[in-house]
Amino acid sequence: MLSEAREFKQRVDAYLVGLAEGESAQLLQVSNELAPLCEQLRGALTQGKRLRAAFLYWGWRAAGQPDCDGIIRAAAAMELVHAAACVHDDIIDGSLVRHGMPTAHVAFAGAGLGRGSPAAWSEGEGQCRDQPAALAMMLGDLLMGYAGQVFATCGLPGAFVARTTPLWSTLLRETVAGQFLEVLRTGGAVPKVAESLEVARYKTAKYTVERPLHLGVTLGGGSARLLDAFTDYGLPLGEAFQLRDDLLGTFGNPDVTGKSNLDDLRDGKPTALMALTVSLVSDDDRQILAKTVGRPDLDEADAARVRDLMVDCGARAQVEDMIVERLALAQRALASTPMPRTAHNALRDLATASVDRPL
Amino acid sequence: MLSEAREFKQRVDAYLVGLAEGESAQLLQVSNELAPLCEQLRGALTQGKRLRAAFLYWGWRAAGQPDCDGIIRAAAAMELVHAAACVHDDIIDGSLVRHGMPTAHVAFAGAGLGRGSPAAWSEGEGQCRDQPAALAMMLGDLLMGYAGQVFATCGLPGAFVARTTPLWSTLLRETVAGQFLEVLRTGGAVPKVAESLEVARYKTAKYTVERPLHLGVTLGGGSARLLDAFTDYGLPLGEAFQLRDDLLGTFGNPDVTGKSNLDDLRDGKPTALMALTVSLVSDDDRQILAKTVGRPDLDEADAARVRDLMVDCGARAQVEDMIVERLALAQRALASTPMPRTAHNALRDLATASVDRPL
Repeated sequence: MLSEAREFKQRVDAYLVGLAEGESAQLLQVSNELAPLCEQLRGALTQGKRLRAAFLYWGWRAAGQPDCDGIIRAAAAMELVHAAACVHDDIIDGSLVRHGMPTAHVAFAGAGLGRGSPAAWSEGEGQCRDQPAALAMMLGDLLMGYAGQVFATCGLPGAFVARTTPLWSTLLRETVAGQFLEVLRTGGAVPKVAESLEVARYKTAKYTVERPLHLGVTLGGGSARLLDAFTDYGLPLGEAFQLRDDLLGTFGNPDVTGKSNLDDLRDGKPTALMALTVSLVSDDDRQILAKTVGRPDLDEADAARVRDLMVDCGARAQVEDMIVERLALAQRALASTPMPRTAHNALRDLATASVDRPL
Repeated sequence: MLSEAREFKQRVDAYLVGLAEGESAQLLQVSNELAPLCEQLRGALTQGKRLRAAFLYWGWRAAGQPDCDGIIRAAAAMELVHAAACVHDDIIDGSLVRHGMPTAHVAFAGAGLGRGSPAAWSEGEGQCRDQPAALAMMLGDLLMGYAGQVFATCGLPGAFVARTTPLWSTLLRETVAGQFLEVLRTGGAVPKVAESLEVARYKTAKYTVERPLHLGVTLGGGSARLLDAFTDYGLPLGEAFQLRDDLLGTFGNPDVTGKSNLDDLRDGKPTALMALTVSLVSDDDRQILAKTVGRPDLDEADAARVRDLMVDCGARAQVEDMIVERLALAQRALASTPMPRTAHNALRDLATASVDRPL
């Protein structure tokens, strides 16, 4: 099983790297000045766990369909959506690092792009527009454009693709909706657990697990019953995934997770972890949180204090419990759903791997 | 002819308004908090000249195909790409007004959504703390997602759509490339006319005229000769369109154009108009330009001084001449290309209407 999972990831990786190379060649025909865009395009497509691709692929296999190249390309399209979402998300969150590499807007800034050259004819020091972020926004737009194209031309029969188009729209709509709600609530009023989980449902559970599975099932002509079963599996698993992400975002070791463990706190991200902490601490400690969380200059010592509060009040342990409960729900839904054994085993292992990520 | 053009616009408008209503209903099922997103979605889809849709439609008709609902939807997809591009472009340019209405990020800020001011996309090193801009970025992503879907499911035969997918990718790639190059060069080194026209070729000429025509021709199974003819028509016409846009962006009456006549100057946009002006003025006047253009606090008096320089040095008149030359080239290419008379007349009138926009 493990080797099949590894082989799947390699095939998706190979397709996406090939796409990046082909597109880069086209972009460089437009202008050599687009080399930094090509470099970031390649970077955006060579990283990632390929989880969303895997859920789509195993949805297809669960529907009884055989492995083929077309489904690999359809799965890769999910990764293009994700790559686009990550680039835009990193701009919004002001994230500096992803997968241990500078994020696109940081890389563009580091390459000295878009700030005006020393020979600038306009000495507009007062310019406050963030051009590196604008360049990264363009990269995300390009990736999003490719996503729809790769999915539409994946090579599976046209009738298969045609019956999934409403779902593809749904996936985009829900993902944007979840992200929109998160931005609305970030740095705003005191977060509530129910609201955090609502954002997680749209931004992560549906987008990362349920909808990719549904896309695979629908491409493969699977039953309504299978779709329902994957909702029962996907939503709790996706919430567990987000809750683990929240823990990693504050308690993770950046060398292991490849991303900052300060950004969520600096942004005042309304995670369930934070909502629980706010609800469990004393009034005095809540004052400390209010003064610390959401400050762009929050430092390591501030973070350490917040982490201590999260542990001491029991919020961290409670989030761990929520993860365990949700993983169990997902595995139970999976166990009671008939499907080919290889798909069943793959989805069981994917569930565990999604949630048991090292801090 | 005029009434046919008006009827075409009404059909595209009706389709897009219907789409906005359907999608809004779906978004509100997710959360009532998405009402402002729905409002901006509707706003983004109820405005515009529908030029890009018209070029796609008349490319189809030029290929000898009959009017039908499928081609209206394919044409509307071009407007979705454009709506997405406008929303993101307005963030990048810090534009406050489009079509006489607040731009999306300004509207979100005005509705008190999120922190941050619309004038500042960023407050710090690579960080976007401008939540209204983040919300607008999501709106653009949603529109871009719809675009691919509407095109793929326009209702024309699958084989027709399938043969246009490489072109659709090309359109996205060239548009992003043009925008990327423009951002790289904005507020940077002294603009050169050739570079301005290169940006205009990708950002406007191909995207607004040539590629929509090619999409329509390819959907309709038109000849390679027709594609070439539309390159000869589209590129000069698109450049003329951009040159007119540059004039409107500085000399236009905001009450007529629906947009600011200060933004291009404040952003230090490397337009051909500005490049010509810089090359034609005296050294002293070039100093004045260097101190004025690209300043976010450039005011009406500064703008008036720059406008006077543009007129006095002959740059404005030269740009007018460039427009006339390019329009003539386009009309000549059209005149020598065999196609049904209705298509010919429509494209002749569209060329004039694209370029003869009132100041």
